[in-house]
Amino acid sequence: MHTYKITIAYDGTRFVGWQLQPSGISIQGLLEEALGALDEREVIVTGAGRTDAGVHALGQVASFSVHRAIDGDGLVRALNARLPPEVRVVAADPVEAIFHARFDATRKTYRYRIWNAAVLSPFERHYAWHISSPLDVEAMNAAAVLVEGCRDFSAFQAAGSATTSPVREVFASRVSLLDDDPHHPERIAGAADARLVVYEATGSGFLRHMVRNIVGSLVEIGRGRRSVEWIAEVIEGRDRDLAGPTAPPQGLVLVAVEYGRAHGARLGPAAK
Amino acid sequence: MHTYKITIAYDGTRFVGWQLQPSGISIQGLLEEALGALDEREVIVTGAGRTDAGVHALGQVASFSVHRAIDGDGLVRALNARLPPEVRVVAADPVEAIFHARFDATRKTYRYRIWNAAVLSPFERHYAWHISSPLDVEAMNAAAVLVEGCRDFSAFQAAGSATTSPVREVFASRVSLLDDDPHHPERIAGAADARLVVYEATGSGFLRHMVRNIVGSLVEIGRGRRSVEWIAEVIEGRDRDLAGPTAPPQGLVLVAVEYGRAHGARLGPAAK
Repeated sequence: MHTYKITIAYDGTRFVGWQLQPSGISIQGLLEEALGALDEREVIVTGAGRTDAGVHALGQVASFSVHRAIDGDGLVRALNARLPPEVRVVAADPVEAIFHARFDATRKTYRYRIWNAAVLSPFERHYAWHISSPLDVEAMNAAAVLVEGCRDFSAFQAAGSATTSPVREVFASRVSLLDDDPHHPERIAGAADARLVVYEATGSGFLRHMVRNIVGSLVEIGRGRRSVEWIAEVIEGRDRDLAGPTAPPQGLVLVAVEYGRAHGARLGPAAK
Repeated sequence: MHTYKITIAYDGTRFVGWQLQPSGISIQGLLEEALGALDEREVIVTGAGRTDAGVHALGQVASFSVHRAIDGDGLVRALNARLPPEVRVVAADPVEAIFHARFDATRKTYRYRIWNAAVLSPFERHYAWHISSPLDVEAMNAAAVLVEGCRDFSAFQAAGSATTSPVREVFASRVSLLDDDPHHPERIAGAADARLVVYEATGSGFLRHMVRNIVGSLVEIGRGRRSVEWIAEVIEGRDRDLAGPTAPPQGLVLVAVEYGRAHGARLGPAAK
């Protein structure tokens, strides 16, 4: 058997999420179908992060084992030829058979985008949370920093989700503001008064809905409904009911997943 | 009658273009329908630029006259409530009855986006031309500059289109490269080796398909199939068959339309 690590970007708009579901199209399902056709037998694909319906990825990572040995570039081409354009394999590398995309991940980075303007750009309707009232970005960032650390994050865990431990380490948690220059050629979207508020978090891992619940709470602070210090009380309380509402899925992007025994060192490809 | 100037952003992906067509949904048709419902009679909307199917706009401008007087912000809200999320009115101002969105426009700016990487980002599939072979951006820009000036642009006019004069003045014509930093929070799209090549042109006006034909020719130069100087020969020849292929519509964005007797000076709102 040959084990591979692939990096995948996807527009999650029309999918039920990463994970196979009884109905609807999942990213995992699309990959397993494409790999099943390539390997001519059933292939199980493991993803690093189980993104929800409507959530996007720039750098999702998955692993699987197949009988046929294929070089990385050939695998990228063969998979992309079988996948819809919303899902693109951007890299593929052979790895040791013991590699596991979820268990071996040591750092994940998520980004959440908020379009803060009276009118939602047509180009952001599937990629941002639209909030028309002005947000206090400085207060949001001051609160975001209080999320950093190794903590019990039960307060931000989706109701009813069962994981072995609610403790995660958040290495970085920041809110920044990007004034939207309509003449900046890097952006297609733009409006004179538009502001893009971006939350970015890097952690050892995240509980179900954790990033969206943090963002929902930061927005309560940004709207002036809660103080900066309130977020520390929410975390202390370990009670989902104390936190803000869950931010909608379309603003969330899984940016990167990192591997390595020491943080930052990546697993090299396996010897051939 | 009350005359208004509105600025509109739209994602052109699923539309037949700006102009009303016998079948399919047009931006003009959507606006006329929304305004007809507001004014309770037929309203004719005139657009500054007649963008083709699949072409986008950040700053399209249109004008129309209605019987009901509405303040600008109220008009923005009322129209957006009746339009699909792909089409957003971003500003509305009362203007003098003689204002005409097309005839009074003195400058238009278009942008064309090329995704130059092996794999097309899922987030760019409707907003860029995907070219996987590396482009010589310096050569493209050197050729783009040769397009500037007041000239007969018949060479870049869509076959069979009849306009009174093929002479236009191009004030600025440039190609630039934006390395795609996947960690830049302003972008949702990203891939390690991805480059975004952007063409931007400002002119007194543009013939049908002119920007897309210029881009098609610049790409021939970027691929190394033609010399930089070839573009001057193409313009001199005034023959559509000499130019490169028409670039696909999805990379094109109408960025801004400017008004004013002297370039840069905008028409003020009408006295109430």
